[in-house]
Amino acid sequence: MKVDGKHYRSIWFDHDSNVVKIIDQRWLPHRFTIVELNTRKSFCHAIRDMWVRGAPLIGATAAYGVAAEMQNDAGDQALDDVCRDLQQTRPTAVNLAWALNHMRDLLKPLPDHQRAGAAMKRANEICDEDVECNRQIGLNGLQIIRQIAAGKSRNEPVNILTHCNAGWLATVDWGTATSPIYHATEAGIPVHVWVDETRPRNQGAQLTAWEMDSHGISHQLIVDNAGGHLMQHGQVDMVIVGTDRTSSNGDVCNKIGTYLKALAAKDNDIPFYVALPSPTIDWQVKDGIAGIPIEERDGKEVTSIWGKLEDGSLANVQICPDGTPAGNPAFDVTPSRLVTGLITERGISPASTEGLAAMFPEFSSP
Amino acid sequence: MKVDGKHYRSIWFDHDSNVVKIIDQRWLPHRFTIVELNTRKSFCHAIRDMWVRGAPLIGATAAYGVAAEMQNDAGDQALDDVCRDLQQTRPTAVNLAWALNHMRDLLKPLPDHQRAGAAMKRANEICDEDVECNRQIGLNGLQIIRQIAAGKSRNEPVNILTHCNAGWLATVDWGTATSPIYHATEAGIPVHVWVDETRPRNQGAQLTAWEMDSHGISHQLIVDNAGGHLMQHGQVDMVIVGTDRTSSNGDVCNKIGTYLKALAAKDNDIPFYVALPSPTIDWQVKDGIAGIPIEERDGKEVTSIWGKLEDGSLANVQICPDGTPAGNPAFDVTPSRLVTGLITERGISPASTEGLAAMFPEFSSP
Repeated sequence: MKVDGKHYRSIWFDHDSNVVKIIDQRWLPHRFTIVELNTRKSFCHAIRDMWVRGAPLIGATAAYGVAAEMQNDAGDQALDDVCRDLQQTRPTAVNLAWALNHMRDLLKPLPDHQRAGAAMKRANEICDEDVECNRQIGLNGLQIIRQIAAGKSRNEPVNILTHCNAGWLATVDWGTATSPIYHATEAGIPVHVWVDETRPRNQGAQLTAWEMDSHGISHQLIVDNAGGHLMQHGQVDMVIVGTDRTSSNGDVCNKIGTYLKALAAKDNDIPFYVALPSPTIDWQVKDGIAGIPIEERDGKEVTSIWGKLEDGSLANVQICPDGTPAGNPAFDVTPSRLVTGLITERGISPASTEGLAAMFPEFSSP
Repeated sequence: MKVDGKHYRSIWFDHDSNVVKIIDQRWLPHRFTIVELNTRKSFCHAIRDMWVRGAPLIGATAAYGVAAEMQNDAGDQALDDVCRDLQQTRPTAVNLAWALNHMRDLLKPLPDHQRAGAAMKRANEICDEDVECNRQIGLNGLQIIRQIAAGKSRNEPVNILTHCNAGWLATVDWGTATSPIYHATEAGIPVHVWVDETRPRNQGAQLTAWEMDSHGISHQLIVDNAGGHLMQHGQVDMVIVGTDRTSSNGDVCNKIGTYLKALAAKDNDIPFYVALPSPTIDWQVKDGIAGIPIEERDGKEVTSIWGKLEDGSLANVQICPDGTPAGNPAFDVTPSRLVTGLITERGISPASTEGLAAMFPEFSSP
């Protein structure tokens, strides 16, 4: 989407310089930095040290990493080595493993001299497929926003609350939860976005607020505590969030705090939607609350916060007494009964076993 | 309560030095500083610049401020002046106005030479009355904790979640929501406290975590997003929060985010209690959600966070893009239907018009 009026993807192959470029997200929102990736080492670094983050973007970066290696050395050994090295950067990332297996399966049967071209072509396609999936999610979500707008007086914005960053920075473009918002903006429907800061890592304050600001969309940053009050007082028309993993019965695992917003939406009769690219559905898990393990992360993410000092330098501040023990569950699971609908690339599905099975019959097992 | 093994109140008259002392709360949890107040100016400063905060403590400080002035000049003019100056420090604080009116009504009829003694005696009494009120709340809340503990195996702690700081630092001693916790600890019942950090001002991380640490009570700091997940997974036995104002029908106005925790408690069948000193009941307001105005505070509290840098100095960091607009409602109202009970100094009342009227018949109007 747009930054200072110019369109960007989060990763792209630059034909002029024949190199892959990314936005180094570590410094957002305070510094907008574009970095070239060309060596195996630089791709590994970019994934491991979270210059890029978000499942689809990690997958795309890995695919380009394989392609870049093939330009240097297209032999079997190099292919195995680059896949192994990239896999080790974030071993639990599902999209990473998928992209690497996919690239290896594609390239192994080819003669060496065809590998570089085929790899780069496929990496580009993986990016385009992600963009197209998110575009479809946006068009499907747009219908919901359009309906809400129709019930409002002209120029009165549709107020949308979102949690964390399921934006274009987490994908190649459009984002998932943000795609309907961008599409509504392009369709001329006025929207106002309540951006949950999303403690502890503040992806809302750092990334979603930056996306909204960069693309020129009306928004306000709020603390994670505020959404319930806003809903109680008619200041939220709908909620759209992303998901890291959704079970086959429609329970939604997403950034910690999502469940609280879903409860408030239910209590105030406000529609609560989840933007869901179908690869995020875990068809093996039938009950998300019992079946999705929740990562417990380092307590330092809770006890200190990163930001910009008055002099422009970046620093961490500790917000509690020395040695305070912290709990840091990174995700929670919102039960399907609280979810109004799942906005997929194929359409809007009820959050239920039956709904998902009907929309994705090829994946669901009886 | 205790700091490094020694018992403190948040304000006290030091008989040795014949002066009022407070804990300067601006630097907690990073620095523990005791300050003497003796001039009218110093008392005004302490209230206005939030060296002290919390309704009961502000009232007590004002009463001592009048008493200190009477030691210097006990004339009518001085009495009027000190009351006016103190009133202007935080004009909307109900306890401040109450304490000043109360002191003036007491002192005006007395001859000048009796005023200093009478004022100091009454200021001490106001403190003792606050302590006694909170002690009763603690004893009443202790019964609930005792019951929960009885259903657990020996040495398994009662897990209590609290939001914001309704601790002894906001009162003269014991606190309100924390008083049952301190009483349980003194009674030998093991407790574990989940401390919500309470964005945007982080009173949980800064003050409640410091109180728990200083008194030696097992606790963990969590982000405000985490409580729902913990409740869903059986890690919370009860919630106790304080309140800034409760309507006569039992709707509870408290720090922003309280409503979300009440929703999660209800959804998981976890008791949700509010510690409520009776002066906090607003008998005039019959519907808290419609009738209690919510203060909208400066967006800077949302866009930046205060804490300690690595070198030990204190600083603000900005957590979002330059110029990000923020919404900052400071409180929310939890509907009475979500409240299991109100722990008052007289006993535990249902959160309802009938319940409160039965417990406080002298205040309720038919």
